[in-house]
Order: sequence, then C-alpha cells, then structure tokens
Amino acid sequence: MKNTFGNNISITLFGESHGRSVGCVLDGVPAGIPVDYDNIIRLLALRRPEGAISTARSEKDEFLIHSGVFNGFTVGTPICITIPNNDTRSSDYENISRLARPSHADYTAHIKYRGYEDPRGGGHFSGRITVALVAAGGIILPALNRKGIKIGTHIASCAGVKDREFDNYENDIDSLASLSFAVLDNDKANEMQSNILKAKEDLDSVGGILETAIIGLESGVGEPWFDTLEGMLSHALFSVPAVKGVEFGAGFKFAEMRGSSANDSFYTESGCVHTFTNNSGGINGGISNGMPIVLRCAVRPTPTIGKEQNTIDYVNLENAKISARGRHDPCIVHRARIVVDCVCALVIADALASKHGTDWLAL
Amino acid sequence: MKNTFGNNISITLFGESHGRSVGCVLDGVPAGIPVDYDNIIRLLALRRPEGAISTARSEKDEFLIHSGVFNGFTVGTPICITIPNNDTRSSDYENISRLARPSHADYTAHIKYRGYEDPRGGGHFSGRITVALVAAGGIILPALNRKGIKIGTHIASCAGVKDREFDNYENDIDSLASLSFAVLDNDKANEMQSNILKAKEDLDSVGGILETAIIGLESGVGEPWFDTLEGMLSHALFSVPAVKGVEFGAGFKFAEMRGSSANDSFYTESGCVHTFTNNSGGINGGISNGMPIVLRCAVRPTPTIGKEQNTIDYVNLENAKISARGRHDPCIVHRARIVVDCVCALVIADALASKHGTDWLAL
Amino acid sequence: MKNTFGNNISITLFGESHGRSVGCVLDGVPAGIPVDYDNIIRLLALRRPEGAISTARSEKDEFLIHSGVFNGFTVGTPICITIPNNDTRSSDYENISRLARPSHADYTAHIKYRGYEDPRGGGHFSGRITVALVAAGGIILPALNRKGIKIGTHIASCAGVKDREFDNYENDIDSLASLSFAVLDNDKANEMQSNILKAKEDLDSVGGILETAIIGLESGVGEPWFDTLEGMLSHALFSVPAVKGVEFGAGFKFAEMRGSSANDSFYTESGCVHTFTNNSGGINGGISNGMPIVLRCAVRPTPTIGKEQNTIDYVNLENAKISARGRHDPCIVHRARIVVDCVCALVIADALASKHGTDWLAL
Amino acid sequence: MKNTFGNNISITLFGESHGRSVGCVLDGVPAGIPVDYDNIIRLLALRRPEGAISTARSEKDEFLIHSGVFNGFTVGTPICITIPNNDTRSSDYENISRLARPSHADYTAHIKYRGYEDPRGGGHFSGRITVALVAAGGIILPALNRKGIKIGTHIASCAGVKDREFDNYENDIDSLASLSFAVLDNDKANEMQSNILKAKEDLDSVGGILETAIIGLESGVGEPWFDTLEGMLSHALFSVPAVKGVEFGAGFKFAEMRGSSANDSFYTESGCVHTFTNNSGGINGGISNGMPIVLRCAVRPTPTIGKEQNTIDYVNLENAKISARGRHDPCIVHRARIVVDCVCALVIADALASKHGTDWLAL
Repeated sequence: MKNTFGNNISITLFGESHGRSVGCVLDGVPAGIPVDYDNIIRLLALRRPEGAISTARSEKDEFLIHSGVFNGFTVGTPICITIPNNDTRSSDYENISRLARPSHADYTAHIKYRGYEDPRGGGHFSGRITVALVAAGGIILPALNRKGIKIGTHIASCAGVKDREFDNYENDIDSLASLSFAVLDNDKANEMQSNILKAKEDLDSVGGILETAIIGLESGVGEPWFDTLEGMLSHALFSVPAVKGVEFGAGFKFAEMRGSSANDSFYTESGCVHTFTNNSGGINGGISNGMPIVLRCAVRPTPTIGKEQNTIDYVNLENAKISARGRHDPCIVHRARIVVDCVCALVIADALASKHGTDWLAL
Repeated sequence: MKNTFGNNISITLFGESHGRSVGCVLDGVPAGIPVDYDNIIRLLALRRPEGAISTARSEKDEFLIHSGVFNGFTVGTPICITIPNNDTRSSDYENISRLARPSHADYTAHIKYRGYEDPRGGGHFSGRITVALVAAGGIILPALNRKGIKIGTHIASCAGVKDREFDNYENDIDSLASLSFAVLDNDKANEMQSNILKAKEDLDSVGGILETAIIGLESGVGEPWFDTLEGMLSHALFSVPAVKGVEFGAGFKFAEMRGSSANDSFYTESGCVHTFTNNSGGINGGISNGMPIVLRCAVRPTPTIGKEQNTIDYVNLENAKISARGRHDPCIVHRARIVVDCVCALVIADALASKHGTDWLAL
Repeated sequence: MKNTFGNNISITLFGESHGRSVGCVLDGVPAGIPVDYDNIIRLLALRRPEGAISTARSEKDEFLIHSGVFNGFTVGTPICITIPNNDTRSSDYENISRLARPSHADYTAHIKYRGYEDPRGGGHFSGRITVALVAAGGIILPALNRKGIKIGTHIASCAGVKDREFDNYENDIDSLASLSFAVLDNDKANEMQSNILKAKEDLDSVGGILETAIIGLESGVGEPWFDTLEGMLSHALFSVPAVKGVEFGAGFKFAEMRGSSANDSFYTESGCVHTFTNNSGGINGGISNGMPIVLRCAVRPTPTIGKEQNTIDYVNLENAKISARGRHDPCIVHRARIVVDCVCALVIADALASKHGTDWLAL
Repeated sequence: MKNTFGNNISITLFGESHGRSVGCVLDGVPAGIPVDYDNIIRLLALRRPEGAISTARSEKDEFLIHSGVFNGFTVGTPICITIPNNDTRSSDYENISRLARPSHADYTAHIKYRGYEDPRGGGHFSGRITVALVAAGGIILPALNRKGIKIGTHIASCAGVKDREFDNYENDIDSLASLSFAVLDNDKANEMQSNILKAKEDLDSVGGILETAIIGLESGVGEPWFDTLEGMLSHALFSVPAVKGVEFGAGFKFAEMRGSSANDSFYTESGCVHTFTNNSGGINGGISNGMPIVLRCAVRPTPTIGKEQNTIDYVNLENAKISARGRHDPCIVHRARIVVDCVCALVIADALASKHGTDWLAL
C-alpha cells in the first residue's frame, strides 16, 4: 500500500498535475462527523496561490465528494474526494519535457517509471496533489477541534527573516487560522514577502521553516516502537513536497545542550501534570505527555526557477541548460503551511483512533 | 501492528530492559543469505557500552537465533533473535520507581499503560532494546554490502565539538567501520570524549548529531506518497531513543538558501547521471537519484542524569526531586551510531525488496 | 486501512449505491501496462444485469479514470476510477428504509454506523460497489494474461442444477470468457435460467456455487503464515456480497477422504513437475505448486425478495413485515462470476508483485 | 509483513519444527490483562498429541515468555513467547529429505526457498508451529471470556462419522472446554476414534470438519470491504495446516436454498434483536449481527502417511516412491480444534480493538 498512510484512519492519494483529477480516499473516519463544505473551501483557499508571491496558475479547487457523506454527515464508509484539474496549460511544459529540473522529481520519476511517467506539470509529484490532503484535513481538523485539539502552523523563518516564537499557544493558533500568510509578527510578514519578491525578480526562489503546535492532545498517545508520534508525523510530513527536515521540540539544538538544561522537569498542580520547559516538544518515548506537540519542518526553496541551470536531457542522456518558463512559485512555504496542518491532523486522528477506537472521534 | 516496521522486509521488536530477553523477529528476508555470527558479534560490540564515557552496565549481548537460519544461511522464514538480559540490577531503580525521570518515558509509559508498565530500567523504553536492531542489522548490512551498498555513520557533532564532513564517501565509510567512537577526524574524537567526561563529572549528559551516508543505492528507489525514502527512514529513525530531529541533505540549512544555490544541477558522464552538488541528500521526490543518501539525526542528551532535578511522583501526583543513581550513560551518541546504521539498512533493504521482489537480496 | 486490500498491489473501494459515484483506487500497478478501455467495457458488461433473470436497474457503467493512466499506459501511480451512479430511483427504497431486509446488511450497518449510514439502495453494502472491482480487474486481468496466467469462473451449480466439471482448463477458460451466463454445458445454462425465472415468479431468489480455475501460475507463490494463497484469496472473496463459503481443491469433500486418495502424488516429466490428481487445488502449504489453482465460492440466494418476510423496524425496534418492491435480482450468481475473476486477479497479481517486485508485471 | 496477522492486535509466528524454538510475538494486547500460566498449559495440552490416535512425538511444550508480561499482567508491550523444540529426532526424516511428501509443502517450500529451506520435520510448515498460536490464544481467550465472549469448536465430522449439531450454544461450548477429543455426542467420539485407528492400521489418515461457535459478540463488529468478519477469520484460519475450506452459517448449503428459506428473519423482544434462524452464521454484510458466529473448517487428511505413494525426488527431479516412517498423526482434526479456537480469538479480539480501541479488552 504505497500511496496510503495511516492505520485506523488512513488516506490514499492519487492524481497527476494535468490529469483529470487529483484526490484522495479518506478511510476509517467514523460515521456522524459533520462535513462543513464552507470550511473545506476556506482551507483550500489558504493553500491556493494568490498574489505576486505565488504562481499565476489559477486553481479553482472545486471539489467533489463521491462517497462517504450523506445528509451533511460522514456515514462511516470511505470518503472519496476529487478535485478536477481545469487550468492546465501543458504547453508551458512541452519544451522542457525531456530536461530534468534540478532537484525536482523529473529524473527520478523517469527512472522509477521507466519512461511511462506523466511528465506534464510534474505529474504525480506536483505540489498540486496536496490539495487533496487539505480537502481531507477540512473534514478531520474540525472533528479534532470538537475534541479540544487545535493545530496551527506559522512561518518560523522564510527568505532569511525569522518570525517571533509561539507565545500563548491557543491565542497564536487562533490568530493564524485566518491568515493566508501565516506569521505571528505582522511586520515580519512584510519583510518575508518583500524578500520573496526580490527572489522572484532574480528568477530565483526561497525556502523557510514551518513551525507547528498541536495543543489539547491528551497524554498517552503514540507507540514506543515504531509508531512513535515523531515517527508517524515525520513519515507523513516528508511527503509534503519540499520538506527536507523534521524536528521536534529543541530538535537539532539538542546537540549543543546538556541534559540538565535539555530535560523538561515535571511538576503537578491541581492534579494536572506539566513540565516547566517543553524541549521535548510534548513527546517522551514516542508518546504524548500532555504538553503542546511542537515540531518544525524545513522547506527547501522551490526547485523550479527561471534562472538558467545546468542539467541533462534524461531521454538522450546529454548535458543541457534549463530555464523554467511555466508558472511556478518563488516560494511555497506559506502555501505548504495549511498542508502541514492537515497532515498533522490526519496523523493525530489516526493515533487517537488506535487508542479510543473508530467511533470516538464522532462522539 | 504497532511494534512492527517495514512492508516486505519487516522487523518486530520486543523486550523490556530487565525482562527475560529483548529481541526481534526479522521477516521477509529471502532464503540463501549467509549469516555470519562473528559479524553480528562485532556490530553488537560497537553498540555495547565501554570505557568511562558509557554506563558501567556490562552487557554480554549473547544472542540466540531461534528460527529462520539453518546451515549458516537464512531459510526464508521469520528470524527470531533473542538477547537474554543477564546483568540486571533492579535494585538501582527501586527507590526511584515512582519518580518520573524528566524527559524520559517513565511518565508517558505510566499513563499509556495505566500503571501496568514494567518500570525496571525503563522497561520497553530502554535503549537496551536497540541491541535487537543491531542483531538484525548484522544480517542485513552484509547482504546490502554484497549488492554494492555501504552505510556509514559518524558523529558529526557531540558535546560542542564538530567532526569534519564526509570527504570521500567510500573511504570514510570504510574507515568508520571498525571505530567504536566513530569520528572522521581523530583529534575531534579526543575532544568530544574529554567533553563527555566533563559532563559526567558534573553529573550531567550531552547530545550530538549523527550523520549517515548510504552509497551504492541505485536510482529509482522509494515512493512518491507516502513511502518516500525520507518518510520511511525518518519513521524508523525516530524510534531510536533520543533522536529528536532528522534531516536530509542540506536539511534545515535550506531555509536560508535560494533555489539557484540549493538545486543540485545534473550532468552526465560516460552514460551515468550525477549532480554537481548533493544538497538533496540523494533523494528527489522521495526517490533515490543515484547520489549518496545523506541524512542527519539530532540526538538529545541522555535524560537520565545524576544532577538533582524537579519532578513528580507520578503515582501519588506529588512534586518531588530526583537524582539518578543507577548506571547510565553521560552520552549515547557514539553508541546510537551503529543502531542508526542498522535501522537505515533495514529500511533500504525493504525499499529494494519492494522494487525487486523478495529474493533479489539473496541472488 | 479498512477498505483497502493487498500488500504491493492494493485496491481501495469506495461508494454508496445512490451516492455520486462508486469507484476504487488501484495502487502499486507498475508503469507501462497497456489500458484497454474496450476490454474494461466488455468486462463491465458481463457484470451488468441483463434480461429477465436480473434486476431491471439499468446500469450504464460509464467509468472515468482520474489518474494513473497516460497515453494508454499506466504511469505507475495510483489509478482512481469512478463510475457515476445515474439510474438511481431512491423512491423505491423510501418506504422500507427503516425495515431491515432479512440477511441483508441494513441492520448491521445501522448498528455499526449508529444511524448515520446511507440507507439508499443498500448504501456501501450494495452489490453495485463490485463494479469498481471489475473495472480494476479490467486492467489487471489482461496484464496477467500477458504473463501466461488465465482465470476463469463457471457456475458450478445454481438453482439446483449442476454444470459439468472443468475438463480442459485452458479451453474451458477461453470458452467462458465471452459468456454472460458462464456455464460449461450449455444445456445446463437453460435449466438454471429457467429455475431462476421460476424463483422470480415466486417472488423468491436462488443461490449457487462458482468454481474458479487459475492456470499458468508458477510454483512458489504465496506465504506459509499468514499470507497463504488460500488466506489471501478467501479474505478478498468474502468481500464479494453473498459469498458465504470458500474452498480449495477437494475442499469440504476432504472430510470424507483418506490421505491415500486425497494426496496428490507428484511425478516429473521432461523436467517439469506435476501431480496426478489436484485435490489440493494447486496449493500446498499455502504456496502454489504449479498445478491449476481451483477454488469454489458458495453464493447465498439474494436476500432481497418480493415475498413477505418477518422483520423489524430497526429505528423504532418494533416487529414488522417486509416485501421488497425495489428492483432486485432473483439470482446474482451469474453476475458475481466476473467479480470473482477480478478479485482473484488482484490477489494473484499482488502475490506475484511480492515475489518479483513492482515492475515485473509490466515487463 | 508476511508472517504477521492482525491490525491492532497482531501476531507474528516464527519457528521450524526442528529448530531451536517455535514461537510468536503477540502485539497490541493492552496492559492489565492477567496472564494465567496454568490456563496456557491447559490449552497447550489440548493440542498436544496423546494416545494411539496421534503421533508418538512427545512434545513437552514448555513455554517461555520473554517480554510483555510483568507481575502476572500484560504490560502493553509485545509479548514474545518461545516454545523450545526438545524432542526432535531428525534422523526419522533424513532418508526422505529429498522426496516430496504428496500434498505436503516439501516441494513448494523447496521451490519458494530455492533449496535453502529447513527440511527437518516439515520446517516452518510443520503443524508444530501452531503451538505458538495456542500459547497466544491462552492469553487472549480468557480476556474475551471476561468480556462475555465464548468460543468453542467441536469435531462436526471425522472419518465418516458426524457429531450432533450445536444445541444450546453456551452449554455446549462449556462442555467442550475440557475435552481432548471435542465432540458433543460422546458415542460419536468413540466411533470416530475407532475409525481413526482403522486408518492408522492401514498406514493411512483421515480428515474431518471442525465447527466453531462464537457467542456473546456484540453486533456491529467487522468491516464491509475488505475486512469482513468472514474475510478476516478465513484469512487466518487457512493458515492452520490442513484447512482447505471455510464456510459461515449455511455455507455451501446456500447453493441449494431459496432466499425465502435462507433468509434469517429478524424479531425483537424486550428491546433485543434476534433472528429466528441463523443461516447467516451471525454475520450480515461482513458485520456481526449479535447472533452466534458459526463457521466450519474443512480439514484434509494428514498428508504424511505410511502407505507407499508415488512422488518425486525434488532435487534430482526423478520419479520415486515414498513411505513415511517418521512419527506422524493419522488424524489432526482433534488436535487442530484448539488451534481454531485460538485463531478465532485473535481475530475477534483484533476486530474489537479496532472498534473500541486498544485498552478496552483490559478494562
């Protein structure tokens, strides 16, 4: 089951950038979860390119629910959602179809699929596919909310500019919900966008770091080997195109720390257990400890750029030059953010379904 | 299947630190792979604590193969390996058994298992369990070697000291093979060890970064969604106790880069495809591109330290103080290194088995 | 992963009888397999009700391939197929929607989905969903054919009439391919159909036995525990609605036999290995032995009948009477036959993919 | 994951007949389930050969629990159980090691494992491995009992003699519990055993049918596609050596029935739902309906017999004769019965864990 993720609540992705539709099958969702179309539309809008800092490809993201929903509620059976591909200008890509975009999947897809790959617009490797993850998240995120679990992601760093850190998790997550460029410090948003535009002018692209907090998750969720919360989350998150690193809590900063400052001391207050610090990112031994889950994803600069680069013609195996002319994003960090929220929601819902059984999420 | 990892070649781990045995079942290994007991013993020795920089617990690591091996070769059926726990001094832990070691899994295990957990020596959460991963790796690593695939991990940074970077991958991997403290620059090894000892004197612990290279892996291995090489590797690696971050290639450094410098331009030479740089760590779109797979794991400082820390008695829910008195490691970075090698071997073998079928590894 | 089946080649089913579409995602199919739309249409026609012996529901079965196919070939990514539901007259079912059809899934669906189930036309439990299995089989069956593997199913018994046994497997399978009522002895077909019509006149229904042969499968395919060929095939076959028994080779007749007559003695001729008899149905120890795989499925009479039956109103928990008035089949044995072929094809392709790797089927 | 079965509660089997140990890893069992060693010993005794009707191989079945159990309770982590192989007289098999026992797995194992298989005593294909299933069942069966679920299997038919049918399920199941030759009508037991001895005198073997009832299972358990209760149970049951058919309720008898007599009409009484008949074997649409689950397994005659048979030397590919001289069973139906109980227990526990979450079974 290669394109499927999850044990009790699972998602299967399908679609090519310029095929008939992209979509997903979301399975294991209990009957009785309300499906709010407007909320799905709202989330899809957060992923959609807009303004000068994104691709000019206009994606309508009209979605069709084929199954699993009746009278506004999930019915407990697999939910198939398709999002038709309308605005596909394959001609943009025709003249580069044999040239491997550096650091893109053109070459590896060609090798893996032995020349049968659909090369139009990146095919199955297009960020376009993530629209299906967001549609699925649009069903799961509100269900988690009703259980007191909130998920929010901000652009911790982008194009050399750092956002402020999470302060009050709940307030911060709430404030991020409606932002299409999700930073906590609005001044930094302007700086980042200005730097993105500079890169765009240079026919170049930029990367960044997304930081996610998950609050309200009970303690005791996750498995010791191998389905640790870190393992499950990272497994899914590395599918988000351009993510090349995932860390939890202090992450790579642990390398410089000593145990005495790295450890999160416990204390108890009014019968609840907390830690003074949260360097562990809410996870000990792969299992949630009741503190906020905090993780960061490194997002590489978009590989497709206008600047001329060396590459190969992978059909004729000849050295060549490439300059992307199709519509592409100078930065996808801000668009990836809602995808990260949705991926986290799917993983957390699955881990909870394992603990509490299939129906719990709907009760 | 909570404690099982892998699709076609899979491993199931079991065992508690002070139970009868720890061990694993390695399944899907094709018939006809030679099993070299001496090599397994050699790898187990690399994981075993030794010298002042490790715990005083003396682990003999005698292993028993119960099944799946006959006349020196795998027979194609599940291989069960147990490693008896002999040197277990439970008394060390008795007086702290209700106190949660900060950042250890004592508390989360207690919540998850509702008081039925085996608390002796960290139970199922002990680093002791990794001995079974190494035993399994002792069968898989040589099989990959025979297919031209080599895996090596060095301590890229520890206790504030940085090792040099990989230079010539093959030479470096070969030179690491026999080192019990795996650094490429021997002077740095001394510095690191001296800093570890300083931390030990301070009743404290240190963390570090492990960097792994996998060479000789053909291009076209891995899946786009969700079983990307990054996703599969990170999923398994986050099970290695103390790993809190995993990055590939430039990883978190991508956040500061522009596409034009981040991208790995392709070139072809004598019919082979290479990239000038390897910021992608050998993976594009989740699939190997033929360049070395390069990844880094952030390893937190050992949570168990002698220094007094605030914590709770998790049975009576009272605030308390804790100072570990059991035998424990001031640093596990150097010991975790062979575990990382073995985990990578299992994941790569599984990905190859998916592509080439079950028997390929033995042919 | 509840609605997904298969390890390396897998299928996920979705859809409700009167929802927007039914369909499937077929994953793990290698790139480069030709997709013949006409052949899929031909197989779908074999499943479609026709004539007096079937339901009057006219199903057009227009199918849409959303992904995974480009230029007439599979591209190696998940293939999503939807079949829109057009001819749905929900009014037929409205007046019985709270009455549990005896032996149908109305009641169990109501309990499982806690009242949120889609009750229209049997919802997710409708035989309608099998159209997606046939569409998927339309891609896999020809691919197996190209590897020399043929699958054919005949109605071994129906409405009290027995067909002759398989004689020459290859000829028989070939002759069955184009029959919409698949019996080997044409006279028996008429008898069976006449008996089905009699049952229909009595507002009743009939069952039968489907017998399947799979030829050309190499020896050595299948696993000892638990993925035996029998286990995998039966697991999938029990999903075909109305199947209540699966046996291999002599099956339940073994109970009356002694080992000396039950055993299939081996002999070798021109370097090939055969058995004189095939009571084992081509499987020893869960693994193919090179002889034809022979299995039989018991198909219960259609539960939905016009005759009045006792039942309950499952919402108000009151005793009641029910007489089905919707369009329904007096017999589904003949329609289930192509579904059984397709399910077998999916399982065999998956078992082969495990042995030979993902690409083999396309080479 | 080839030798693993189950989603939330899973079992991995390992071992060869004459290797060091056979055993299993039972994973997903919640913490807090009491482990009664005496009960496991009692169940193992039911599987053990005894008397003239079984093999003379004396199996002590001393079992070791390596992990997952502490202070008499499960701790929530994987439970590894090994049963050492002591009484192994490989010499019995030495002179036939290149001759394929007809209908045994010698030949298919040789093909599958390419000559590396462990041929001693049937290796991994020996019925010996089922001892591990029984040990696991010894933990799960009592846990189900505490939830009001009882499982019992009787020899419905053996050596041409039929037992009476289930009458009062609960009484019958209780009376079967302590029988080593599990028939409901004691007179039939004597007839069956006498016929088995006759077959033994003839150097031959006999088969039979095992019928299982599972009572106390709530309605609403199981999945529509593909994890139907029938599919899950049959998948696992076909791993029990010699099982070649599985049917539920009326099973193959459905072929002769009309819907009006085959259907199980519902009625309600005191707020509970029942059916007048139980031809469906307690399952509608793959989901339990609250009535007893009733299933039957066809068990083939033991393939290993003393009578001379034609066969091949599978190494030299020559025709040959074989007469088994090792210790073997003239009938395994009575011994397989407790294995079937345990396999059913594992499947039912897994299905319930999916619905209610991991901890439910222990609460």
